[in-house]
Amino acid sequence: MTLPLLRNCWYVAAWDHEILGDTLLERTILGQSLVLYRKQDGQPVAMNNKCPHRHAPLSMGRKEGDALRCMYHGLRFAPDGRCTEIPGQANIPPGTCVRTYPVAQRHRWVWIWMGDPALADPAEIPDTPAQTDPGWRMKPGYKNFAADYLLISDNLLDFSHLSYIHERTLGGSPNIAEARPEVRRMERGIRVTRKVPDTVPAPYHQRLGKFAGRVDRWFHYDYVLPGILLMDAGVKDAGKADDDLEGALLFNSTQALTPETEHSTHYFFMQAHNFALDDATITESIYQSLCTAFEEDRLMIEAQARLIRSTPAEPMLPINADAALQQFRWLVQKFWKAERQDEPAAQRLSA
Amino acid sequence: MTLPLLRNCWYVAAWDHEILGDTLLERTILGQSLVLYRKQDGQPVAMNNKCPHRHAPLSMGRKEGDALRCMYHGLRFAPDGRCTEIPGQANIPPGTCVRTYPVAQRHRWVWIWMGDPALADPAEIPDTPAQTDPGWRMKPGYKNFAADYLLISDNLLDFSHLSYIHERTLGGSPNIAEARPEVRRMERGIRVTRKVPDTVPAPYHQRLGKFAGRVDRWFHYDYVLPGILLMDAGVKDAGKADDDLEGALLFNSTQALTPETEHSTHYFFMQAHNFALDDATITESIYQSLCTAFEEDRLMIEAQARLIRSTPAEPMLPINADAALQQFRWLVQKFWKAERQDEPAAQRLSA
Amino acid sequence: MTLPLLRNCWYVAAWDHEILGDTLLERTILGQSLVLYRKQDGQPVAMNNKCPHRHAPLSMGRKEGDALRCMYHGLRFAPDGRCTEIPGQANIPPGTCVRTYPVAQRHRWVWIWMGDPALADPAEIPDTPAQTDPGWRMKPGYKNFAADYLLISDNLLDFSHLSYIHERTLGGSPNIAEARPEVRRMERGIRVTRKVPDTVPAPYHQRLGKFAGRVDRWFHYDYVLPGILLMDAGVKDAGKADDDLEGALLFNSTQALTPETEHSTHYFFMQAHNFALDDATITESIYQSLCTAFEEDRLMIEAQARLIRSTPAEPMLPINADAALQQFRWLVQKFWKAERQDEPAAQRLSA
Repeated sequence: MTLPLLRNCWYVAAWDHEILGDTLLERTILGQSLVLYRKQDGQPVAMNNKCPHRHAPLSMGRKEGDALRCMYHGLRFAPDGRCTEIPGQANIPPGTCVRTYPVAQRHRWVWIWMGDPALADPAEIPDTPAQTDPGWRMKPGYKNFAADYLLISDNLLDFSHLSYIHERTLGGSPNIAEARPEVRRMERGIRVTRKVPDTVPAPYHQRLGKFAGRVDRWFHYDYVLPGILLMDAGVKDAGKADDDLEGALLFNSTQALTPETEHSTHYFFMQAHNFALDDATITESIYQSLCTAFEEDRLMIEAQARLIRSTPAEPMLPINADAALQQFRWLVQKFWKAERQDEPAAQRLSA
Repeated sequence: MTLPLLRNCWYVAAWDHEILGDTLLERTILGQSLVLYRKQDGQPVAMNNKCPHRHAPLSMGRKEGDALRCMYHGLRFAPDGRCTEIPGQANIPPGTCVRTYPVAQRHRWVWIWMGDPALADPAEIPDTPAQTDPGWRMKPGYKNFAADYLLISDNLLDFSHLSYIHERTLGGSPNIAEARPEVRRMERGIRVTRKVPDTVPAPYHQRLGKFAGRVDRWFHYDYVLPGILLMDAGVKDAGKADDDLEGALLFNSTQALTPETEHSTHYFFMQAHNFALDDATITESIYQSLCTAFEEDRLMIEAQARLIRSTPAEPMLPINADAALQQFRWLVQKFWKAERQDEPAAQRLSA
Repeated sequence: MTLPLLRNCWYVAAWDHEILGDTLLERTILGQSLVLYRKQDGQPVAMNNKCPHRHAPLSMGRKEGDALRCMYHGLRFAPDGRCTEIPGQANIPPGTCVRTYPVAQRHRWVWIWMGDPALADPAEIPDTPAQTDPGWRMKPGYKNFAADYLLISDNLLDFSHLSYIHERTLGGSPNIAEARPEVRRMERGIRVTRKVPDTVPAPYHQRLGKFAGRVDRWFHYDYVLPGILLMDAGVKDAGKADDDLEGALLFNSTQALTPETEHSTHYFFMQAHNFALDDATITESIYQSLCTAFEEDRLMIEAQARLIRSTPAEPMLPINADAALQQFRWLVQKFWKAERQDEPAAQRLSA
C-alpha cells in the first residue's frame, strides 16, 4: 500500500532555534532534501538542497548575506532561488535557479508548504500560542522515528496506550485505557476528549509533588491534518467540581509529525505548564518525562514498523479504541485522493 | 536458487535456560518472528510475535501468569493463543487469536514444529541424552551465522576442514583431510565415520594434558534432518586395540542448525566429556576451544556466503570429500519437494 | 544510466608495499573480488578470490612458496591459477583452475588488466617516474570513496573547486576558479593547463614557509583513461619570467582512480616535491595537506553521490568550467561503446 503523503498543507519544518546565525540546516521532508536558513532580517528560507550544476548539496555551502553559495564550484543563489553568480563566467543562463518553498514562522515553529505555492495561505497555520506566551513555560523537543507518520498518528489518537507503554511514566493505571473518549470529526481533523475520573496520579505527576490521594485527569485535544496535536490536559484532586481548578496542574502540549521519508518521521513536541513558572527544574522535569515516554513510544512503534515491513501483509484487527485513528486515516485518504485528482498527471509523477 | 526450508520437522528453538522466569524471548525461525516463554508449570509456549490488533511485537509485552499481555494497547492472550481481554471493551470477537506452534522440551533443548501441527509427533525428536546425563559434563553454546544453514551443514558433513580452518584448534595435521570417511545414507540423514590413526593430538587435546606421543582419533556421527549433529568422538594412544579405552578421551557432541532467515542461521551446540567430571576448568576449556573453532568457521562461512551472494552464480567443483554433504543436500531437496507437493498452493504462498 | 566501466585498460590495483611478504590482499576491482600477492621473485600475482571448490575466499588462505592454499578444504593453486593439490584425492580433474589477470609493477604501483589478456600490453602503462626518482620525495596515499569514479574524475578535471572546497587547504582565493584553463583533447585523455597569476599562496604553501608576497601558480596535467592524473604544478614569486624558477616550489603528482564497484572507488595518490629532499617533515606536511584536502573532496563527493542516488534523475546544468570533464566523459563513452561492440555477447553478459 502506498503511504498517503499530503502536499498542500503546512508542515512543521524546524524549531526556530535550529536555524540561527549562519546555520544551513539540511532536512528531508516528504523525501525531498531541503536546505533551511534565515535571512538577515530573520525571515526563514527553504530551498531544494541540490545545486543545479553538479547536484552538490547546498547545505554544505556557505551563507553570504542573504544568499547561499555552493561550496563545490562556487555558484551563488539568492533567497528566491535565482542563481546570481557562476565563477569564471559572465553570463548566467536565464532560468538558472533552485526551487524554493513557502515558509512562515509562527511562535517557535517554522512551517513549510510542500505543495502548489499558489495555494499556500499562512492564515491556515494552526495556532500554538503557549510556545511563546509568558504565562506558560516549556522546553522544545525533537525526535526522529524510523516509522511512517501514520503509525505515530495512530499512537497520538488512542491514549489507551498510556496505560501500557507508559505505565511507569505518563500512565499509572489501566483506568486510562478503560475510559471511553468522546471522538468528534472536524473538517480537517479529529477532536478527542478523554476524562479519567478517580484514578491515581501518573508517576510524573508524583514527581511534581502535589497529590496525596486520588485524582481526576483529562485530555482535550484536536488532531489536525497533516499530523498536528493541540492539547489541553490536566490533573486535580478527585471529586471536585469541573470548574474548581484550585491545586490543579494544567498542561498545554503541541506536537507535530512531518514525514521525512515513507519510513521515517520528524517529531516536534513540547508540553508547557502554567504553574511554578519560575522553577526551571519543573520545566526540565516535565521535558524529561516526555522524552522518556516518547522514547518508550519510539521503541514500540519502530519495532511495530519493522514487523509490518518484514512480514507478509495481514489485516489489522479493529477494536473499539481505534475509533479516532480510523477516522483520521479516513480523512487523510480523502484529502490525498482530492489532491491527486487536482494535480496534473505530469506533476504527480515528479512528486 | 531458492533455499529449501523444511517445515514439517522439529527444529531447536532455544536452550532451556533462555526462557526462564518472566523472559519473553524473541526468536525468528524460518523468517517468522516468534515469542517464546514458559508457563508456570514449566511448559514452553511459542506464538507469532505479532499482536493481531496493530501488529506490535508481543515480545515487548508482559507475562501475566500463563498469559501474555501486549504492552502497546493491552490485549491479553492465553498460552493457546486465544485473546482473553481487550481493554475498554466487553466483547471479544470470536476467532481473535495469535497462531501458536507445537513445542516440546527434551533434555536441555526446546524444540519447535513450524509446519502442519497435525503432523507433529514429539516421538520423532532426536535424542540428546548427554545434555542431562550425570555421567557427562558440558556447557551450552550458541552462535548466529550470517549464512544459510546449508553452507554450515556442508561444513559439518566434511571434517577435512579441521586440517585447514582448525589447524591450530581442533585439527593439528593434514591427516584428518587425508583420511577417507565411511558415508552411509539413512532414511532421514547421513552417518559418517572417520578414523584418523597414528596422528598428532589436536592442539585442544594437548591442553587437556594427556598424550605424550601419537594418537588415534575417531569421529562417529549422524547428521539428520533438518540439521542436527549427534556425535561420539574420541582420542587415545596410537596403536591400541579398538576396545581398549584406557586413557582415552571420549566426547559426545550435539549441534543443531535452525534457519533464522534465508541468509542467517541459529547454531546451538555443546561438546560433553565423560572424564574429569568434577574439574570445571576442563569443561570450560573444551567449551572455549569449541567457541574459538566455531568462530573460525563463522569467519570463513560468512565470507563464503558474501562471496556467493555478491558474485555471479557459478557451479561449484565437486571433489571426493564432498560425498556426505552432496547426499545430505540431495535428501533435503527430496523432503522439500515432498512437502511442497503435499501442501495446498494457498498455504505454500503464505508460508 | 549504466556506469561505463572499461575493461581493456590498465588499472592501478595496489601500492607496492600493500603486498609485501606473505600478505594476501583482497581487493575488489570492477566488482570482481581479487586476491593479490607476490611470488618469491617479487612478481605480483592477481587471481579471482574464489576457490572453485566451495567458493571460499582465497584471500583467507595461505601463501606456500609461490602457491596459494585455500584454508577451507586445502586445495592448492599455482600462481598461474592451476590447481596442484586436492587433499585426500590423487586425481585433479583437468581444467581445475582459478582465473588470473595480467599484472605488472611500474615504479611503486602494481597495475592490473581486467579485460582480454591478449590485448594487455605493459608498454601502455602510464609512466610515473617521480614515485621512485631519487630527485623527488613523496609519501603514498590511499582513500576509498563511496562514489562512482566519474564523479571523482569530474573533480580532478575542474580545479575551480580548489577555490571553494579547498579554500583553506589547497586553494586560498577565488582566483583559481576565475582563471580559464586551456583544455586539449588527446587520443586517450585530456590535457589541462591552468595558470593563476598574481594570487595569494595556498594555505599549505604558507606552511612550507617560502613566500612573503603574491605568487604565480600553475597546474599542467594529463588526465588519461581509465582515470590517471599525471601532473606538474608549482608556485613562485609573482611576476617573474616563466623560466626563472629560483625559489619556486615544484610538485609532481600522480593519482589514480580504480572503480571498486559501481558505487565506490579506490583512490591512489601521491604528491612529490623536489626541494628540501632531506627534510622529512616537509614530505609529511605535504602528504597531510593532501589527505586533509582529499577528505574535503570525499565528504562533498559522497554527499553528492547520495543526493544523486536518492532523488529523481534531473539533468545537470552545464557551465563553462565543465569543458574538460565533459570531454573526458565523452571519451569514456566512446571507448566503452567500442569495447562492447568488440566483445561477444556472451562475454558481455558475464562481465
